[in-house]
Amino acid sequence: MYLRDIPLPEARTRFEAALVEASLWGVLGVEELPLDYQACSRVLAEPVWAKISSPHYHAAAMDGFAVQAGDTDGAMPTNPVKLLVGKKAIYVDTGSPLPETCNAVIPVESVEPLDEHEQPAGDVRFPYWIRIRAAVTPWSNVRPMGEDIVASELILPAGQVLRPVDLGAIAACGQGMLRVARKPRVALIPTGSELVPAGREVKAGEIIEYNSLVLAAQVHSWGGEPLRYPIVPDDFTSILEKVSEVARTADLVLLLSGSSAGSRDFSARVVEALGEVYVHGIAVRPGHPVILGMLNKSIHQSKPTPVIGVPGYPVSAALTGEIFVEPLLSRWLGREPGSKPVIKARLTRKITSPPGDDDYLRVVIGRIGQEILAAPLARGAGVITSLVRADGITVLPRGVQGLAAGEEVQVQLYRPLEEIDRTIFVIGSHDMALDVLAEHISRRYRRLVSANVGSIGGLVALRRGEAHLAGTHLLDPETGVYNVTYIRQYLPGVAVKLVGMVGRQQGLIVPRGNPKAIRSLDDLTRDDVIFVNRQRGAGTRVLLDYHLGKLSIAPDQIQGYTHEEFTHLAVAAAVASGKADCGLGIAAAARALDLDFIHLFEERYELAIPEDHFSSELLEPLLQILKDPEFQQAIARLPGYEVSQMGKIVAELN
Amino acid sequence: MYLRDIPLPEARTRFEAALVEASLWGVLGVEELPLDYQACSRVLAEPVWAKISSPHYHAAAMDGFAVQAGDTDGAMPTNPVKLLVGKKAIYVDTGSPLPETCNAVIPVESVEPLDEHEQPAGDVRFPYWIRIRAAVTPWSNVRPMGEDIVASELILPAGQVLRPVDLGAIAACGQGMLRVARKPRVALIPTGSELVPAGREVKAGEIIEYNSLVLAAQVHSWGGEPLRYPIVPDDFTSILEKVSEVARTADLVLLLSGSSAGSRDFSARVVEALGEVYVHGIAVRPGHPVILGMLNKSIHQSKPTPVIGVPGYPVSAALTGEIFVEPLLSRWLGREPGSKPVIKARLTRKITSPPGDDDYLRVVIGRIGQEILAAPLARGAGVITSLVRADGITVLPRGVQGLAAGEEVQVQLYRPLEEIDRTIFVIGSHDMALDVLAEHISRRYRRLVSANVGSIGGLVALRRGEAHLAGTHLLDPETGVYNVTYIRQYLPGVAVKLVGMVGRQQGLIVPRGNPKAIRSLDDLTRDDVIFVNRQRGAGTRVLLDYHLGKLSIAPDQIQGYTHEEFTHLAVAAAVASGKADCGLGIAAAARALDLDFIHLFEERYELAIPEDHFSSELLEPLLQILKDPEFQQAIARLPGYEVSQMGKIVAELN
Repeated sequence: MYLRDIPLPEARTRFEAALVEASLWGVLGVEELPLDYQACSRVLAEPVWAKISSPHYHAAAMDGFAVQAGDTDGAMPTNPVKLLVGKKAIYVDTGSPLPETCNAVIPVESVEPLDEHEQPAGDVRFPYWIRIRAAVTPWSNVRPMGEDIVASELILPAGQVLRPVDLGAIAACGQGMLRVARKPRVALIPTGSELVPAGREVKAGEIIEYNSLVLAAQVHSWGGEPLRYPIVPDDFTSILEKVSEVARTADLVLLLSGSSAGSRDFSARVVEALGEVYVHGIAVRPGHPVILGMLNKSIHQSKPTPVIGVPGYPVSAALTGEIFVEPLLSRWLGREPGSKPVIKARLTRKITSPPGDDDYLRVVIGRIGQEILAAPLARGAGVITSLVRADGITVLPRGVQGLAAGEEVQVQLYRPLEEIDRTIFVIGSHDMALDVLAEHISRRYRRLVSANVGSIGGLVALRRGEAHLAGTHLLDPETGVYNVTYIRQYLPGVAVKLVGMVGRQQGLIVPRGNPKAIRSLDDLTRDDVIFVNRQRGAGTRVLLDYHLGKLSIAPDQIQGYTHEEFTHLAVAAAVASGKADCGLGIAAAARALDLDFIHLFEERYELAIPEDHFSSELLEPLLQILKDPEFQQAIARLPGYEVSQMGKIVAELN
Repeated sequence: MYLRDIPLPEARTRFEAALVEASLWGVLGVEELPLDYQACSRVLAEPVWAKISSPHYHAAAMDGFAVQAGDTDGAMPTNPVKLLVGKKAIYVDTGSPLPETCNAVIPVESVEPLDEHEQPAGDVRFPYWIRIRAAVTPWSNVRPMGEDIVASELILPAGQVLRPVDLGAIAACGQGMLRVARKPRVALIPTGSELVPAGREVKAGEIIEYNSLVLAAQVHSWGGEPLRYPIVPDDFTSILEKVSEVARTADLVLLLSGSSAGSRDFSARVVEALGEVYVHGIAVRPGHPVILGMLNKSIHQSKPTPVIGVPGYPVSAALTGEIFVEPLLSRWLGREPGSKPVIKARLTRKITSPPGDDDYLRVVIGRIGQEILAAPLARGAGVITSLVRADGITVLPRGVQGLAAGEEVQVQLYRPLEEIDRTIFVIGSHDMALDVLAEHISRRYRRLVSANVGSIGGLVALRRGEAHLAGTHLLDPETGVYNVTYIRQYLPGVAVKLVGMVGRQQGLIVPRGNPKAIRSLDDLTRDDVIFVNRQRGAGTRVLLDYHLGKLSIAPDQIQGYTHEEFTHLAVAAAVASGKADCGLGIAAAARALDLDFIHLFEERYELAIPEDHFSSELLEPLLQILKDPEFQQAIARLPGYEVSQMGKIVAELN
């Protein structure tokens, strides 16, 4: 009945054609507002032409005496001219109208009042005389009528998004009211029996409903008026009734699907029943199951109402807002569609992309020296934090199967470039102290972004100039010294400072109460024990493999050895969920998820910082914080942590 | 008693020290909000840590059958495996929890249901069997618990200005409330007996009060809560009473001075009476008479309240907001102070600057080819339109006396660079059709900015690569042809297309009823007639001088010949105000200000467009609009205009 997964431009064209057909492809209506500060950010529906000039009369630009310039001719330091106040010189305040007979103002500072004995007979104060010692030219110290605004000129065009100074100019040219585009009313109906409102306790299988929150906030920030409705369960009739009810008053209905196929089908069936489906499925990743339609069949409805069926996954939902809702609201407000700054950046790693789709890839942007790099974030449509962390988005168009590391991409920025310029990019092994550091450093005009690729991955990235510093905890079994050997190996010839961060306990993370009575690495070979591992290149993995070697335990003796996670917390989460019985990690991760911890080793987690960055202004606040007792105490409170070396230069290499 | 005009950094330091002393140099307070879309743009007062993981259980990532991966071992296209539904394969919707016994999901598309005859005996539908032809690996098509968020991790730091996706992430991690910085309450008290509210009829000497509007809108847009009070006349007691009343509840008082010295002094005296003045006068242009103080003497007041005395001129007032109010509000909200994007640009003309001041110069930015240019706008503190038109601001620090044309400056941008990239920069002679064009083109994703430097000035600027096109109406007396001769002279060797714009009537603009009975240029020599001229290089000036030459009238025979204005409207304004009795200009300018017009000549106003720009994407919409009948009709309605040549290529040069 309808096509699935049509290309994005075609979907846009179909929807736009239907909107044009329904006369819904322009400003929805005009609202008259008093000229007050609440009008800020509203969009002018009509141009503003000046009703009066500003100044609307010739105005004194200084406090002083208005004169006829000719009367001052010949005045010189050696040849003062005297003027009778009230007749030839009239006192004016700044802003006062110039008397008709005058064409210049002498500032009060340039005037000498006559001493009492010099004043002519009569009232010595009024009328009295002033003395000047310089002639003035006509129109000096006068703001002539129309200096700022001449009546009839264009002050602001229609479509202007009003800023504070615009309001001032509108007032200055004699206007007292504003005609702005009325705010489009956007109804948001979340559907899905599995959904529960935010803030409630949740059970397995219950999903917190927040797509309506994100989209309502988007609509609000784009100048629309969101109307958020309560969750409707997966029931055809209930959804149909709610949609036909809200379509009567809303300008746009956003029907938010649950995640299941059943729920998605309800949306399409409801739109079909109440109107027309133009598009169902767009070749966009993430975001495929978008529905674009028009509600126009109900007899209760006096006008057609466009409807967008929004997919259930949060990243898909938010991108549907950006791709379809924002341009429509801009059109309805008569303003230019929002555009993001675009920069070029180099990909830090290879990515693959489905060739049939426009692929919206979220990236973190870092400026490392002169190079701007884009590090791809998690691709999953369910990972809302990938949008929170994203500095921008790059679109891999249909037909592109992937891009190699180092290729240049165009990135649309979510954050201003200035903010990116003060971002410190940490790569390598993850430690919880980095989260606390990120929190502390945000108070010092810096932003800390970390990518977890393991200790060795971090050193490799550092060599490629892809980060400012790397967190690393790599034990050299020969020497028992941490990190130095590996930095020499992976960063030959690079001047690096190795800065102390934390000493921490490594051990086995097990469920609370340690039900399987795991005591040491030997237990990993037991039939009833499933292990969860860290990825290759992680310091913890190096540590594990070193000790397994000493114990002569082969990887294939351990169930779950090939199940790799990328952070300590992910390992702990795997244990907490029952996916695994134990994993090697740090005490703090066990504590965070309320698990037990069997302490096995001590290790040093340190920061490798190339000399160039070490001495940069960017990193200065970071190095200060590491020496800040308040910060050190916050870290020392984490279970199994000690901070005796924090902020100290442990080694200087090359 | 207090210093006048201290440097800006010193003023800041004094004010900050007083705020620190009063414990007013941090977040003012915390407000708890429900997690709803209105929280967008609020600032987090505390970091958000994840309360629960997301997903908070292992969730099916597809609609399909949950299985134990081991049960699928050996399944191949040629060797299908059958699984009993309800026992070995459990149907799950996307988002459903994975049953405890399962560790993978087979998508419904990859499953073959058994035909009826293949089903074992019993109820053929439930339990029934499915057939698969590929093994699955553990955890495939599963969103493991914590894939997005792991309980206990940092989601957002304090100070985060909340965006729509942030609200989603906060909901996803189990939070239902938000703790944000409370909005600072900012009272705005306009003072001055000459002030009248916007929208009222005004008489000479009355000034429309809009500084409180602009500053209230600024405060609002910076996250504060503005409280706008009615105008208080210049009366010490009234101002004192109002200030002490509002100081009880406001976090900050903005006392907006009138323009006169008297009014300014009231502000300082009131602050002195109610507290302390730390700074009165800052070496900043425009903006000198800023007052920074603290209200703390009144017994009715439970807390000290900072006060800023804001100068009366609108540009000074708006800049005082940017320089002092915005950073203070940022501090009180616990967020980073706002920063504008900075770019480098070349000055289009020489500027002088008072060496004792930090000089805030408003500029228009144009990108002409690869070059970014900054054209200085009107310098007057009273010219609010200079802020409306400004694309950015460049600060000439104390000690700099001026800069030459072509020098590079740092410009803080008010508009995003993308907006500047679609700006068409018109220079040269001004015509009212350009205002209408600016209005029409704003609907086509372009912005038109014009600088009026006269026809010859425009051609010179075009040669220097400082604009995309120039408006010109320069008569060659030898040939009677417009513009061609001059373009050859001023743009030798440059390929230029000359495009028709309007034919228009030039003549004498005189007051309504023509009280001095002026008929022709001969009347300009009369003793009782004062003329207003256009600047040298203006086409109208060339026209005048040509005809004066033919009539053998010398410039010094004409009173007012040296009084130069830069636009037709400015000439009309000079006549309207009585500053002059007549001026040469176009009929439309006379009509705009309700003046009479004595038609003398016909002339052609055309657009000179270098070939490079003519064929650029940037100018495409402009050339389309010139051929648009709707636009042509709008222009033809202007008095004295005809549009027969509009949009046609009149000449192609070189």
